[in-house]
This record gives sequence, C-alpha cells and structure tokens, in this order.
Amino acid sequence: MRTIHSEKHRLRAPQTELSGGRLVRPFECPERVEHILSRIAQTGLGPVEPPVAHGLGPARAIHAPDYLDFLATVWERWRAAGHEGEAIPTVWPSRRMGRRGAPQAIDGALGWYALAGETAISSGTWEAAQAAADVAVTAADLVLGGARSAFALCRPPGHHAAQDMYGGYCFLNNAAIAAQRMREAGAERVALLDVDFHHGNGTQAIFEDRADVLFLSLHGDPAQEFPHFLGGADETGVGAGEGFTVNYPLPPGTGYAAWAEALEDALGRVAAFGADALIVSLGVDTFRGDPISSFRLESDDFADYGRRIARPGLPTLFVMEGGYAVAEIGVNVVNVLTGFEGS
Amino acid sequence: MRTIHSEKHRLRAPQTELSGGRLVRPFECPERVEHILSRIAQTGLGPVEPPVAHGLGPARAIHAPDYLDFLATVWERWRAAGHEGEAIPTVWPSRRMGRRGAPQAIDGALGWYALAGETAISSGTWEAAQAAADVAVTAADLVLGGARSAFALCRPPGHHAAQDMYGGYCFLNNAAIAAQRMREAGAERVALLDVDFHHGNGTQAIFEDRADVLFLSLHGDPAQEFPHFLGGADETGVGAGEGFTVNYPLPPGTGYAAWAEALEDALGRVAAFGADALIVSLGVDTFRGDPISSFRLESDDFADYGRRIARPGLPTLFVMEGGYAVAEIGVNVVNVLTGFEGS
Repeated sequence: MRTIHSEKHRLRAPQTELSGGRLVRPFECPERVEHILSRIAQTGLGPVEPPVAHGLGPARAIHAPDYLDFLATVWERWRAAGHEGEAIPTVWPSRRMGRRGAPQAIDGALGWYALAGETAISSGTWEAAQAAADVAVTAADLVLGGARSAFALCRPPGHHAAQDMYGGYCFLNNAAIAAQRMREAGAERVALLDVDFHHGNGTQAIFEDRADVLFLSLHGDPAQEFPHFLGGADETGVGAGEGFTVNYPLPPGTGYAAWAEALEDALGRVAAFGADALIVSLGVDTFRGDPISSFRLESDDFADYGRRIARPGLPTLFVMEGGYAVAEIGVNVVNVLTGFEGS
Repeated sequence: MRTIHSEKHRLRAPQTELSGGRLVRPFECPERVEHILSRIAQTGLGPVEPPVAHGLGPARAIHAPDYLDFLATVWERWRAAGHEGEAIPTVWPSRRMGRRGAPQAIDGALGWYALAGETAISSGTWEAAQAAADVAVTAADLVLGGARSAFALCRPPGHHAAQDMYGGYCFLNNAAIAAQRMREAGAERVALLDVDFHHGNGTQAIFEDRADVLFLSLHGDPAQEFPHFLGGADETGVGAGEGFTVNYPLPPGTGYAAWAEALEDALGRVAAFGADALIVSLGVDTFRGDPISSFRLESDDFADYGRRIARPGLPTLFVMEGGYAVAEIGVNVVNVLTGFEGS
C-alpha cells in the first residue's frame, strides 16, 4: 500500500491545548506522524510519497469561502490584535446567539468559526492544513487510478471540521474532501466509515443532506465524550440524506467484541449501499492506552478489523484522523493497513 | 443612598481567566469591591448593609431549573471528573450543533451552559452568585419600599447571564432578578438601562419577548467588542417585546459627548415608556483607563451622567456590573451615585 505524506505537517506545532482548565502540551503533536512513518518503514508496508499540490480547489468543494478566508488570515489577525498566546476562542455563538453572523474583530470571528476550544491556532497551521488536504486528494487519486488501497497520512486530522467550523484538532475535512474528489471523478456512491474514537461530527454535517455519500461512525457516546453535541443514533440524515447517516454511539469501556459487532453492522450497510469506493477515517484512539479516550481495543484488534474492512472488496482510502497514545500509534495504524492488505 | 453588600462575594475568587491565548489573573477580582466600599466610606454616601437571604425563589423567576441545578453542582462534578484546573469549557453547541440538549458528562454540560470561556468556575462561585442575587433583591425591596434609590453592590456581576447560560464573569442576572422582583411587587413597567461598556446580552435575551420591561443598552459595537454575538441596533425585541429592546452600539474610542447623546436618547425613551421604576446596570468599564474596554469617559463624566439619570425622577436601583480599572473603580462608581443623589 502506498502512503502519501507531507513534511509540512510539522508546521502544525502548537504549544498549548486547553484541557481540564489548564494549558497543556497538545495531545495532537508532530511525533504522532514520526511513529507512524517509522512503523511503515519497519514493516515494509510500501512506499511513502509526497502529495501533489492541488491548490484550494478541492477544499472549496467542501468548505465555505468565508471559512477558508478566515483560516488563511486568522493567525496574522490574532497577532495584529496584540495577543501573546496562541489563538483560542473565549466567546462563541452558543445556541440562540448565532443571528448576527461573523463579527469583524478577530476575537469574535475566532469563536464564530470554532466548535471547540482545545485547538489552539498557531503559526503554520494553515499551511499544514492545506498540505493535509493535498495528501488526501493525492491518495484519493491513487485509488481512483486503480489502486486497491492507499493511505493518506494526514496531519492535522479533519473529521471534526464542518463546512465552516474548526475544532477537535481539525481545520479542513480531509476525508470529506477526498470523498468529494471521488464523486467528481465518477464514483457514484462513496461510503465513509469513521472508526476514530470520537464522532466525526464535521463529516456528518457536511454530508447529512446527501444520499451519494453514506456516512457511518463508531464512537464514544456523545453524552459522555467529545464532541458531545452530535453523534446520536437518532441522527440519520436530513432531507434527501435521510437514512444515509448511521451512528453507533458506544459506552465508555467498550471492548473489541462489542466494537466489532457494530463494525459488522456498518460493513453490511456499506455493502447494501452499493458503494463504488470506501473511505476510512482512521483514528486509533480506540486503543486501550489512549490518554483521552475510553475504549479498550488491543493492538491485535486493529489488525483484525483491517481484515474485516477488506471484506467488501472495495477500493479503499484510509485517511489518518486521531490517536494519541504516541508510542503505540505506529503499530496500531499499520496493523489496520497490513490487516487490510494481507486479507 | 443605602448600599447592599455581601461579604460572600469573596468566595468568587478564581485564579485563572483565559485571555489572548493565555491563562491570566482574572480582571473581575475581589479587590474591585474593596475599592468601591472604601470610596463609599470616604464620601459618606450612606450605610452599607448586608442582604436578606431569599433562597432561590427570585432566581427561579428568571433562570431555567436545569441551569440552576448545573450551577449548584458544576464545581463538584468538574472536580469529580479529575480535572486539575478551574472549570473552563472546551466544546460548545456552536451554531448548528445545539440539537441534542445538555450532555451528561460535565465537560459537555459546561459548554452547553456557557456562552463564553474567559469565565472560569471555581470553588465558591455558586455561593457568591446566590449572595449577589440576594443583594439585588434586597436593594430592589428598598426601592419598592419607597427609597428614592439604592445601590446593589453585586459581585459577581450579572448582565451577561441569560436564562440558561453563563459567561462574561456572570452567572445569575442580578439586574433581571431585581426587575422581576419589582414587577411582581406591583411595578407595571420597569425600565432597565445598561451603561456597562459591554452589551447586556443576558438581560436582553431574558426580556426580549416582553413589553413590561424596557431594556436599553449603551455599549461597544459587538462587531468589535465582547460579547460579539448580540447587541446590534437592529435587535429591537421579539414578538410582544418588539420595540422594547433598544441598543446603542458605539464605536471603539467613543468619548463622553457621543456617549451622553445616546444616554439622552435612552432617557427620553424611558420617560416615554412610562416606567414605574428604573434599574441601572452600572458598569464603569466605559472609563478611559479600563484595561479591556475602549471608551474614553473621564471620572467627572460619571458624576455628570449620574445627574442625568436622576432627571426622569424615577425610583432608581443601581446594580453593579463591570469595571476593571481597579484603582479608579471606587471613584467612578461613587461619582455616578453621588451625581444622582446631588442632583
């Protein structure tokens, strides 16, 4: 399996994350990618190649123009406002407060475009996010070109980013951008399976009113887990998209048996959907050692579910999302990919 | 003029405020009250008396039951979740994300009930907030009992707190609770004039659909200033309350001449409304030396506008809101009150 990867991910290197009322070193850190690359080399998974630059076209097919303008300028505007720290919102359009649109001042605009505040924006964030989208598009093109599979080693991740909101370490929705790329290249139906511990709220929001992209997500119950405000089993799509969103919220402490049962149900729906291609939003924070999650998968379980994901026989794009047990992230990610390949 | 004050304000003593991407010492600090009390003593404004305890009844007339339950338990729930810092939300129901209601986990519930994140919740916050509401109700009762005026030296402040959201240093909306107290005691029409630098979004939200409480606010334009998402001149009330919300958003750098012109317009509307009583949400962060605001009032201007506020001849309750130039806060607040008294 070929891996697409950009060194520009290193430009995303915030120093602060708001967590438990303190500013801590971010869980979503550059070292995550180093461990994955190291394990890819060690296992001989396949070549690692740089992305093709695509400009903002593919991102524009998913994200709102004002949001992209915001991302391109937020760091300079934040610094120009005289702030000394990294950009973290302190006010947002909560519930009944969204009538007025984006405020002019950066302090207000930051909250308008944010859905979570753990994610500090820092110098280089925008360049890294664009490179991650290029990684996803380049890997999607490999699959469109006939490869059985490809791995988009995206960082920053993407699945929490909605049309016009960032958060949960995500800015551009790499998997959604890849899905749209596939649709525009002729795939009539794309299934997008999100196995990250956290609900892929951004991806759901992007596709909830569409019947051409089936979104399925296995995740910690939002009553208990981030992102808290989307991800219920009763969210099944909107309008023409009704029935094409499928959520599997699972309780804290879920082990592999229950998780795999939900996966089997999801894979059955992927088959019934008649997908032309499968995209996997691959987060490995379901691992029992993950510092900010609560499932109990073991490293061997990742290989097992890689094999299961291969069963539908679909051209498959893996897009990297979360996973914060840094020492084990390489093994767990590559176990999924080799499990898939060896099946 | 009698001042009502509770020593319990000291229980509200957070150590952190999220500001400019850093955790700093809170601008809304106990020393604010000490300076005001000192100036009251120095000028002989009048006696300072403790509040009568009223329990949660008056707050229940304004705030949602689930919100009051949240405030009563949030600190214990936050600590029980193992967090080491003060309670600061990291995820919230931004824009299209408010469908599911309050999440069970405290990390999600915190964001559900927050409209801003600078305001850390700490031990003692709830007890101090209840005491501030008692202060407002006790002072309202003085005015209802025939006093020309009274000063509710509330801390924490209240005007950013909505029916079921906290933020901007506010938890219970003291001025709104006092207005409702007056209404229930027989005042048919209450005018609520908010002269704090920041828009009184919480008070507006509470009364926007009512014709019995006229809400008027002079403040920094929300395009530029906190709370950013409410406070436009085009917000004039909802339904039966149409026409009973009046906002005067003013640009950064506004000096006293332009500010007083807006005040005169507001006072004209108070007179036309036929109010039985006037409540002034008294923030003195319009002062030119305020560290987080941008108007340019001088200390003498506060005395001048105190005189103007007396002109309608209404029984008047002053309720303390913001003001963060701590060394000058006593002079500026008492200038308003003595200006009013001496007129």
